[in-house]
Amino acid sequence: MPIVTVQVTREGTTADRNSITAEEKAAIIKGVSEVLLDVLNKPLESTYVVIEEVDLDNWGWGGLPTAQYRARRAPAAKP
Amino acid sequence: MPIVTVQVTREGTTADRNSITAEEKAAIIKGVSEVLLDVLNKPLESTYVVIEEVDLDNWGWGGLPTAQYRARRAPAAKP
Amino acid sequence: MPIVTVQVTREGTTADRNSITAEEKAAIIKGVSEVLLDVLNKPLESTYVVIEEVDLDNWGWGGLPTAQYRARRAPAAKP
Amino acid sequence: MPIVTVQVTREGTTADRNSITAEEKAAIIKGVSEVLLDVLNKPLESTYVVIEEVDLDNWGWGGLPTAQYRARRAPAAKP
Amino acid sequence: MPIVTVQVTREGTTADRNSITAEEKAAIIKGVSEVLLDVLNKPLESTYVVIEEVDLDNWGWGGLPTAQYRARRAPAAKP
Amino acid sequence: MPIVTVQVTREGTTADRNSITAEEKAAIIKGVSEVLLDVLNKPLESTYVVIEEVDLDNWGWGGLPTAQYRARRAPAAKP
Repeated sequence: MPIVTVQVTREGTTADRNSITAEEKAAIIKGVSEVLLDVLNKPLESTYVVIEEVDLDNWGWGGLPTAQYRARRAPAAKP
Repeated sequence: MPIVTVQVTREGTTADRNSITAEEKAAIIKGVSEVLLDVLNKPLESTYVVIEEVDLDNWGWGGLPTAQYRARRAPAAKP
Repeated sequence: MPIVTVQVTREGTTADRNSITAEEKAAIIKGVSEVLLDVLNKPLESTYVVIEEVDLDNWGWGGLPTAQYRARRAPAAKP
Repeated sequence: MPIVTVQVTREGTTADRNSITAEEKAAIIKGVSEVLLDVLNKPLESTYVVIEEVDLDNWGWGGLPTAQYRARRAPAAKP
Repeated sequence: MPIVTVQVTREGTTADRNSITAEEKAAIIKGVSEVLLDVLNKPLESTYVVIEEVDLDNWGWGGLPTAQYRARRAPAAKP
Repeated sequence: MPIVTVQVTREGTTADRNSITAEEKAAIIKGVSEVLLDVLNKPLESTYVVIEEVDLDNWGWGGLPTAQYRARRAPAAKP
């Protein structure tokens, strides 16, 4: 009876969206539940999946809020 | 100094509500804190309780978002 | 389908034990599951409970590891 | 930069083992990381996966420790 | 590659605010990431920080929702 | 009343150790508690810190267990 918690930033996968869609959430739930079934033989019915969306301001990386961290990395990646 | 985290779906206990009420939250906090007091002698003052409400779309069961999982189970339960 | 996570320090409730007992764990599981049944009508079968025991060194309070925090508070509590 | 936490009971997938194997852990890590890549375009390098193994005594279901819950369900499932 | 999760109540540090500010979040992210760098030599780039803001109703202390607990403690603290 | 959870791999900061030391844990507890005091004026007494040490096999990065991920990155970093 696994519990899978998926934490992601609250943002869209395309420029016109600001969060992940219901279809994407369903695909994540299906995908990770099947991993537990395939690898450990856990029945789908016994797996709970919880998706936690985290505002960009509330997610830190490199000692900075995510938006600032990405902005700093992007120029460095260019020639 | 226990920490109790309670994760539940964000929905009401009656048809006219779409989330749990402040009274229900208070009853959960009181109830689980008293369990720790009764079983492990932990003073109420040392227990933190955090209630996390999770949107139905973000909670998966049976490889599906909760609403879909319930819809699929409901007919099967009927004669 | 609630998930309840209970984090407690790894220590006994009496001087001759160094962890909580299987009976105490069962009582915690029963107690918190019944709170969710009583308050939110969640069937016992839909509630998962996970107990996490944390070494005293790994639990901080008052800016100190628990053992040191307790030692500092204890004398202060005496007349 | 997703974080995926996978909580499972500490037990083997075959009768001669008492925990999941390093190969099974690696397959879980690979599988759930690829779900995030496929669904949300998250690069594998940005996903952290944490597997938490929980002792059977510490996992409750149906208001009971897991071993007791399974023992009670098993007979009921037979004719 | 540490993950640091910071859970705080959703409220402002001054009377005219009802949540922590983006600047305060950035300072928390910077501060805890530097602790991991200083103590364990973990590069800033490898540390994720997730800040979870919890509504006052959803945080329990002393067996009560936070607002009630504070109200009960405040008078007792006065002569 | 913040709760700070610090998840790190179970390994030493020097070659002769295989876990973080009690002194390092105390420094983490002190450091992150002071961040919450400095930034949000949270009294040290109201902050709980929980350190979770995760076996290398149980921590995934880049779709691989940590040891394999590091082994793969190390050669690439060299000229």
